[in-house]
Amino acid sequence: MAGIVPSASAPSQCDNVGINCPLFQIEIPPMNLPAYSSLTALFTRLYRYQHLAAFVGWDQAAMMPPGGNVARGVALAELDRLMHQTLTDKSLPALMEAASQEDLDPAQRANLREMRRDWEQANSLSERLIEAKSLAGSRCEHAWRTQRKANDWTGFLENFREVVKLSREESRALSQAMGVKPYDALMDKYEPGSRGADIDALFGDVKTWLPDLIGKVRDKQAHETVNEAQGPFAIERQRALGADIMGILGFDFSAGRLDISTHPFCGGVAEDVRITTRYSEDDFMRSMMGIVHETGHARYEQCLPRDTVHLPVGRARSAGIHESQSLSFEMQLGRNPAFLALIAPLVKKHLGDQPAFDSANLANLYTRVKPGLIRVDADELTYPAHIILRYEIECALIDGDIEAEDIPALWDEKMMAYLGLDTRGNYQNGCLQDIHWPWGSFGYFPSYTLGAMYAAQYFASIRRLHPDLNARVAAGDLSPIFDWLNAHIWRQASRWETRELVQRATGEALNPRHFRAHLEGCYLGTDL
Amino acid sequence: MAGIVPSASAPSQCDNVGINCPLFQIEIPPMNLPAYSSLTALFTRLYRYQHLAAFVGWDQAAMMPPGGNVARGVALAELDRLMHQTLTDKSLPALMEAASQEDLDPAQRANLREMRRDWEQANSLSERLIEAKSLAGSRCEHAWRTQRKANDWTGFLENFREVVKLSREESRALSQAMGVKPYDALMDKYEPGSRGADIDALFGDVKTWLPDLIGKVRDKQAHETVNEAQGPFAIERQRALGADIMGILGFDFSAGRLDISTHPFCGGVAEDVRITTRYSEDDFMRSMMGIVHETGHARYEQCLPRDTVHLPVGRARSAGIHESQSLSFEMQLGRNPAFLALIAPLVKKHLGDQPAFDSANLANLYTRVKPGLIRVDADELTYPAHIILRYEIECALIDGDIEAEDIPALWDEKMMAYLGLDTRGNYQNGCLQDIHWPWGSFGYFPSYTLGAMYAAQYFASIRRLHPDLNARVAAGDLSPIFDWLNAHIWRQASRWETRELVQRATGEALNPRHFRAHLEGCYLGTDL
Repeated sequence: MAGIVPSASAPSQCDNVGINCPLFQIEIPPMNLPAYSSLTALFTRLYRYQHLAAFVGWDQAAMMPPGGNVARGVALAELDRLMHQTLTDKSLPALMEAASQEDLDPAQRANLREMRRDWEQANSLSERLIEAKSLAGSRCEHAWRTQRKANDWTGFLENFREVVKLSREESRALSQAMGVKPYDALMDKYEPGSRGADIDALFGDVKTWLPDLIGKVRDKQAHETVNEAQGPFAIERQRALGADIMGILGFDFSAGRLDISTHPFCGGVAEDVRITTRYSEDDFMRSMMGIVHETGHARYEQCLPRDTVHLPVGRARSAGIHESQSLSFEMQLGRNPAFLALIAPLVKKHLGDQPAFDSANLANLYTRVKPGLIRVDADELTYPAHIILRYEIECALIDGDIEAEDIPALWDEKMMAYLGLDTRGNYQNGCLQDIHWPWGSFGYFPSYTLGAMYAAQYFASIRRLHPDLNARVAAGDLSPIFDWLNAHIWRQASRWETRELVQRATGEALNPRHFRAHLEGCYLGTDL
Repeated sequence: MAGIVPSASAPSQCDNVGINCPLFQIEIPPMNLPAYSSLTALFTRLYRYQHLAAFVGWDQAAMMPPGGNVARGVALAELDRLMHQTLTDKSLPALMEAASQEDLDPAQRANLREMRRDWEQANSLSERLIEAKSLAGSRCEHAWRTQRKANDWTGFLENFREVVKLSREESRALSQAMGVKPYDALMDKYEPGSRGADIDALFGDVKTWLPDLIGKVRDKQAHETVNEAQGPFAIERQRALGADIMGILGFDFSAGRLDISTHPFCGGVAEDVRITTRYSEDDFMRSMMGIVHETGHARYEQCLPRDTVHLPVGRARSAGIHESQSLSFEMQLGRNPAFLALIAPLVKKHLGDQPAFDSANLANLYTRVKPGLIRVDADELTYPAHIILRYEIECALIDGDIEAEDIPALWDEKMMAYLGLDTRGNYQNGCLQDIHWPWGSFGYFPSYTLGAMYAAQYFASIRRLHPDLNARVAAGDLSPIFDWLNAHIWRQASRWETRELVQRATGEALNPRHFRAHLEGCYLGTDL
C-alpha cells in the first residue's frame, strides 16, 4: 500500500495481488469439490464481466462525451444481458444443490449462500426486463444531466415514467420470488435482510427526537461566530489538497484514481478503485469532505481480502455497510475536530492561510447546522431528514400509492414539514437533484442513514478500546480506526450476513442509540 | 458536427446517431432475409462487445493505475474469449451459406464478404490460443512500460518469448487456413489481400532511391538556416493548441476526447473516438504533429456511415487505409507550408511569439531531415527506413529464421546500414521503442508505409481536381480535402476490398510513383 498510513500496523495493509493469484488463473484447478469448483469458475467469469461494467460505467460518468451515450447504453445493456444469462444458466440449481452436499468449510458455505442470493435475484427477473430497465435507466440518466440544469421536470417525466414502470415490474417479480413487499424486495438488493418495517421503526425513532435536536443546535449555534472561508479556490489546488488527504487516509494511488464527475461516486473494482468528486471555485469544503467520504468507500474496496475478491463471499457486504465506511470517514473521523486539526496545515498549504482555516474554526464550519435543499450538501444533522423524505416517497411510488407526477407536490410538502423549506417549482434543487431515481435505483436511500447509524456504533466500540482516540488522531495516528475497520469490516467482506457482521464487530445488533448519542455529543455536548 | 470545418460542404458532415438508429434496437426486425438478419443480429452483438473492449483498452492505456493491470488483463481475455466464441458459433457456416442464397443487394453482399472474413480468421484459431495470446500480450506490454524506461532487454525477453511463441502459433494456424505464408497470414489481419511478395516489391523499389534522396536532401538542407523553437512549452498550453488544431481539422469534441498516454493512439469507437498524445515541455512539435496524425484516424472513424457502423461493412477498411488517413493529415496536409501558415497564428497565440513560429520557419522545421533512433519522431523521409527495418525483422522472426534474442544484433546492423546510426546497447531507443511487438501485433508495420503511399496517391488526385489547393488551405478552406476523403474513403467504409477502393478513388491501383514524386517535390523541388 503506497498511501501514508501513520503507524498503521500490519493487519490494515492490503496485499498486492500477484500474477499468480487465483483471479489470474483461466482454468480452475481440479479439486475434491467438483460442484463447488464449477460454481467458483462461473462466478469468477461473472466477476470479470463486472470488471468491464465497472470501468465502462465509470467512463460514462467521468469521461464520456455526450455523443457516445447511445452506443454506450446498448453496450452496457448487452453486458447486463450477458451477466443475467450467466446467472440464469440452467446448470446452476443442480450445481448449488450438489455443492451444498460437498465437504465445504464455513467460508465456502458463506460463498455458496451469497451465490444462491445472486441466483435468486437474477432468476426472478426476465432477460427482457433486465435489458429494458438498463436501457431506460441509461437513457433517463443521460437526459437528466441536462434536464436537471434546465429545471425541466416535464421533459424528465417523459423518460422517468418508463423507469418507474420497469422498476415496479422488477419489484413485483422480486417480491413474488422472495415473499416480501415490493419495496422491500428492491431494498434487499442493497441491504440484504432489511425490511420496510425495520426502517419504519428506525426512522420513526429518529423523527421523535431529530427536529427538537436540530432546533436546539441551531439556537446554540446562533450565538457562535464562525469565519467564512474566502474564495476563490483554484480547482487544481483543491485537487492537490484532496489527494494529500487521501494519502493520509491510506488511499492506494497505485490501485486507484481521483477524477471529476457530476455526481460523485466510488466505482471501479477492488483492484483499481475510482473515486470522483466535483469542484466549485467558491467552495472548497464540499469537495474536500466529499473526497473524505469517497475515500471511505475506496479503502473498504482496496482492503477486501484479495484471495476471494473475485467471488461473492469476497465482495463488500452491502450498500448500508459500504455507506457505514464512507460515513465513518466523513462523519466520525472527518468532522472530528482532532482530524480537522491534523489536516488544517494541509488546507493552509494548498489554499493559502486565512482565519477560516484555523482548526477550531474548520470544526465549526463543518458542524454548522443549516437546513438546505441539497442532500449531498446537507450537514450531518439535517441529512437524515433528506433520507426519510426520499424513503417515504420512493416507498409510496414503488408500492403504487402515488405516481411519478405526484412526486413534486409530495416533495414540497415534506421539505416544508421536515426542514421548513419551500421548494415549489425548484425541481433542479428538489426532486431532480439525485441520480438514483433517474437511474432506476429505488431502495438505496435508506442505506445512507443505516450507514450513519452503523458508523456511530463502530466508533462507540473504537472509543471504548481507545479512550485516547482524539489525541492519537490529532497526532496523525489513525491506526486505531483503520485497524479496527480492517479487522471487523474490510477483511470480513461478505463472510457474515449483515446482522451477524455488526453483532460480531460491536457486540450488539444495530442500535440507533449510538447515532443519537453521537449527534447529541458532537452538536450539543463538549466531549469531542 | 461541432468542430470548426471552414466552408465544409454537406457531404463531409457526419450524421449524429439518433435514439432510433439501428444500433439502438435490441430486437432485429423481421425481414425477408432471415439468414442475413440473423447474421446482422450476431454481428451487432459483436460490435457491442468490441465497444466494451475499446473503452476498457483505452482506459488501460490512458487512465489505469498499475495495480489494476492483472484484473484488467483477465477481464479483457474473458472478453476476447467471448468474442471468439460468438464468431465461432456453430450456426454461422449454415447461416452464411443460406444468406448467400438470399436476395441481397450489393452492400449486403459486401457485408457478408466481411463477415466471412471475420469468421475465417476466428475459426482458424482455438479459444485457448486467443486467450493465451491476449494474456501474454497484456502482461508483456504492461511490463514493457517500465522495462523500456530501464533499458531492460533481458527482463523484457522473459515475457516476450511467450508472445513470439504464441504469435507464431497464430500465424501457422492462419497460414494453414488461408494457404499463404505465416507472416502474410498475420499481415492479412491488418491489410487484407496484401502479401509479403507485394511488400518486398514496393519496399525494394523504395530502397533503390530513398538513400540517395536522403543524401541529396541533407546536402541541400545543410545550407539552410532554421530557427529552433525555444522552450519550455507548458503542457496545458500545448494541449490547448492541439485542441484548437483538432477543431480546424473537424474533430467532433461532442463525440470524442484528447488525452495522454505513453504511446499515442486513436481508440474508442466511431461514436466516441479517443485520441491520445504525449507531451514534452522541451518540444511542442512532436505532440502538435502527433495530434494532427491521430485526428486523421479520428475523422475517418467519426465519419464512417452511421447506418452500418455496427456491421463489418461499416467499419474502417484496414490498418493501411487507416494510416493513409492519419498520414494524409500529417504528411500531405500537416507538413504542407500552406497549412503551417494557416496554424502559425494559433501556435503564437498559445505558445507566445518567437521567430521560430513564422510559418516559413515552421515549414522548414517540419521538413528537416535527420536520421534518428525513434520511429515516431522520424521525419517523413527517413520514416520508411524504420518501417523496412521492422518489416524485415518481424518477417524473419515469424517465419522462424531468427529468434527473439537475435533481434538486437539485427536491429543494430540494419540501423547502421539504412540510417548510419549506432544503437548498440540502446534497447530503450532501439528494439524496445514500439508497443507493437510487446503487444503481439506482428504484421502491422508495413501498414504505415502503405498508408504513406496511399496518401500521396490521394493527394495527387485531389491536386488534379484542385490546382489551387495550397491557396485554399492557406485561406482556411480545407473542404477540398475533407470532401474528397469523405466521398472516396470515409463513407465507403468496407464497401470495397482495398484494391478496388483505391482504384475507384484514384483511378489506378497503388502506385508508389506518387510517393516518390511527393517526396522529391517537397524535399528537393519548390512546387509546394
